[in-house]
Amino acid sequence: MPISGFPEWLPSQRMIEQYTLDKIRSTFELYGFAPLETRAVEPIETLLSKGETSKEVYLLRRLQGEDDPKKEDQLGLHFDLTVPFARFVTENHGKLQFPFRRYQIQKVWRGERPQEGRYREFLQADIDVVNRDTLPFHFDTEMPLVIGDAFRSLPIPQAIIQVNNRKVCEGFYRGLGLEDTAQVLRTVDKLDKIGPEKVAAALIETAGATDAQAQACLKLAEISTSDASFVDLVRALGVTDPLLDEGLDELRQVVEAANEHAPGLIRAELKIARGLDYYTGTVYETQLQGYERFGSICSGGRYETLASVGNTRFPGVGISIGVSRMLGILFGQNALTVSRSVPTAVVIALPSEDERTNCERIATSLRKRGIPTEVAPTAAKFGKQIQFADRRGIPFVWFPTAEGHQVKDIRSGEQTEADPATWTPPTEDLKPQIKGL
Amino acid sequence: MPISGFPEWLPSQRMIEQYTLDKIRSTFELYGFAPLETRAVEPIETLLSKGETSKEVYLLRRLQGEDDPKKEDQLGLHFDLTVPFARFVTENHGKLQFPFRRYQIQKVWRGERPQEGRYREFLQADIDVVNRDTLPFHFDTEMPLVIGDAFRSLPIPQAIIQVNNRKVCEGFYRGLGLEDTAQVLRTVDKLDKIGPEKVAAALIETAGATDAQAQACLKLAEISTSDASFVDLVRALGVTDPLLDEGLDELRQVVEAANEHAPGLIRAELKIARGLDYYTGTVYETQLQGYERFGSICSGGRYETLASVGNTRFPGVGISIGVSRMLGILFGQNALTVSRSVPTAVVIALPSEDERTNCERIATSLRKRGIPTEVAPTAAKFGKQIQFADRRGIPFVWFPTAEGHQVKDIRSGEQTEADPATWTPPTEDLKPQIKGL
Repeated sequence: MPISGFPEWLPSQRMIEQYTLDKIRSTFELYGFAPLETRAVEPIETLLSKGETSKEVYLLRRLQGEDDPKKEDQLGLHFDLTVPFARFVTENHGKLQFPFRRYQIQKVWRGERPQEGRYREFLQADIDVVNRDTLPFHFDTEMPLVIGDAFRSLPIPQAIIQVNNRKVCEGFYRGLGLEDTAQVLRTVDKLDKIGPEKVAAALIETAGATDAQAQACLKLAEISTSDASFVDLVRALGVTDPLLDEGLDELRQVVEAANEHAPGLIRAELKIARGLDYYTGTVYETQLQGYERFGSICSGGRYETLASVGNTRFPGVGISIGVSRMLGILFGQNALTVSRSVPTAVVIALPSEDERTNCERIATSLRKRGIPTEVAPTAAKFGKQIQFADRRGIPFVWFPTAEGHQVKDIRSGEQTEADPATWTPPTEDLKPQIKGL
Repeated sequence: MPISGFPEWLPSQRMIEQYTLDKIRSTFELYGFAPLETRAVEPIETLLSKGETSKEVYLLRRLQGEDDPKKEDQLGLHFDLTVPFARFVTENHGKLQFPFRRYQIQKVWRGERPQEGRYREFLQADIDVVNRDTLPFHFDTEMPLVIGDAFRSLPIPQAIIQVNNRKVCEGFYRGLGLEDTAQVLRTVDKLDKIGPEKVAAALIETAGATDAQAQACLKLAEISTSDASFVDLVRALGVTDPLLDEGLDELRQVVEAANEHAPGLIRAELKIARGLDYYTGTVYETQLQGYERFGSICSGGRYETLASVGNTRFPGVGISIGVSRMLGILFGQNALTVSRSVPTAVVIALPSEDERTNCERIATSLRKRGIPTEVAPTAAKFGKQIQFADRRGIPFVWFPTAEGHQVKDIRSGEQTEADPATWTPPTEDLKPQIKGL
């Protein structure tokens, strides 16, 4: 029986997922990110060290294990790839070259109640750069370029990366005279959920804001531009603060680098806060055009302290593609298709069971040249063997005869002579074709 | 802290693992196996339906979940890929085309006490063919060909597939007059552990064998040939039985097909029993030459009933590569190396921070042509930037100047003019090189 929150794709969907992962991985490698995979489990203290996600963790216990293991020995499944990465850096910093760029594509698990588009088991594709002591800001400008390239390599709608900087918000709130900037940020983060009136009321009630201060916070959150013009719009609100200046300069660099690389990829969106995650500067969210209602499919940001060892800090910046989430949304709208349900490009028809060895030789010859090939499972009538290929979307059937070989494109019906040592299908038929809308 | 039984590779080892997985996957696809990935969890009844592995299962519980969920709602991590595959076929048989060929490359978990070469979390790469009602025998002959091709695509020692057929053993025991053939099989399976004398004694004691019968069982287990000559050796023992005949014919077909495809790949090894797994015919084990003491790294066999739905049976045959086990053994002997610890082929040297945008443009131009490129993290002295590349094993450093571009092979010191729009590294330097001993 299906288990709620644990999605499973059919093989044709899994082919689309693999194609997606191959493209993402190859983009990450073009930017020099090294692969990493961490174990699926972490000690419970590692998982709970961020505090906020405790209710989501799946703990493990051995069916025949001892009762009541000591709490500190308990293991749980990781709920993201950032916590395990930070732990890995802490453990292996002596063996790594810094700045250390890694990508990590793995399943993660969250025990929360499943709802539309939320899974309990899902695949994430993360990149992070981490350094010892300080991490130059230019790495923050690189993240959207990588993600933009990865998404553009896929047959999906245009991705828009929305970017903000916590220093802009905190500096602005401070410049306004609001002291509990964390509380203001948490409240403004509810804007899309509860609307501006309720946010204003909550700012007055819980963050000690005046009506004018609350309105200024809302004005800041309204700013959204596709270029660096947000700087002037913020300045026009008349608030000044050194942290605000720093944040505006950083945010401008991110927007300008993205516009130079891929016009239309980025928006400065000053309401983006990324909830309660421990980001300290740049924050990213990403929506697919036409699928904005499904929320962000790729998020991340800058951590001033991703990891620490003794007095040494390891700052980082990273971003994470929610692969299962993105594909679940697109599959739900039938927005991705594949031309066949198997990798096979050619079926070798089997005239009689006696000729299986001969047919296997033909298949071997094609496979040696990289052509995915199956020999028909039984020596049924040729009509049935063609049906075998047709039902799976396999484009070619090969007929071996004593006089010579022929290969048939079963879509067009065209049949031509062919030599097992040289025949090659058209490039577009060699692998299953993945298409978007 | 490392957790016993949960291995983690450094990025350079992970590169070797990915290379291994890419080669295995591409071989599986050349044979037309379609990709499948199942969820990591199964209901506890599904996991325990095979009975024997109950003590190895990791159960999940949500940290903040309700106390004492009903036992039937409990989830556990899968301990192999066969049980989830059987469940997937049962659930989705209406949506699949039979015979259904799938591969599945995933982590599995076992809660058993870790020991040398045994992990609690490890990666398996499985292929299976499953059909409705009956599955032609020729699929049993195909498994060693696929595995042989997969292993030959890797820079590892020669793999020897040891094959046997339960029908040979059971038919032989029956023909001898022994009735509890399962008990005989279980006892003979201990041959490598306890030696022939103790096996003979146990056969007499627990399986009702006479001394002559016990000696005949040991004689059968001694037979090991690289061609079909095992048939005559078995016949020479003077036992006859229809099941024995059937098994000998099947085993001969497997050995002959493998010898035709790849001489040296296979051995008929009549002591192989595959423990208590529910195989009903062909069984496979695989050892790497020179690493026999580490045991099998690729095993499988034929199941007469892989899955069933009502009165419909789904027989299958499959084999599973223990990827983590194999790599753990080879890493332990330093038998696999990679030429660099990052995907990067070229570092663009940065003359000054002002020129970062210009350097990023050069990098973009190289990446667009598939060349993994990084821009230096800081505008340090060129000597330091070359060191940055050298420490990671990156072969080339690119120097942009107003007069023109030069690229230096830092291994040879050779420096040549280069154009960002056309320069390409030698093919062997484009990706990290994986080498065996």
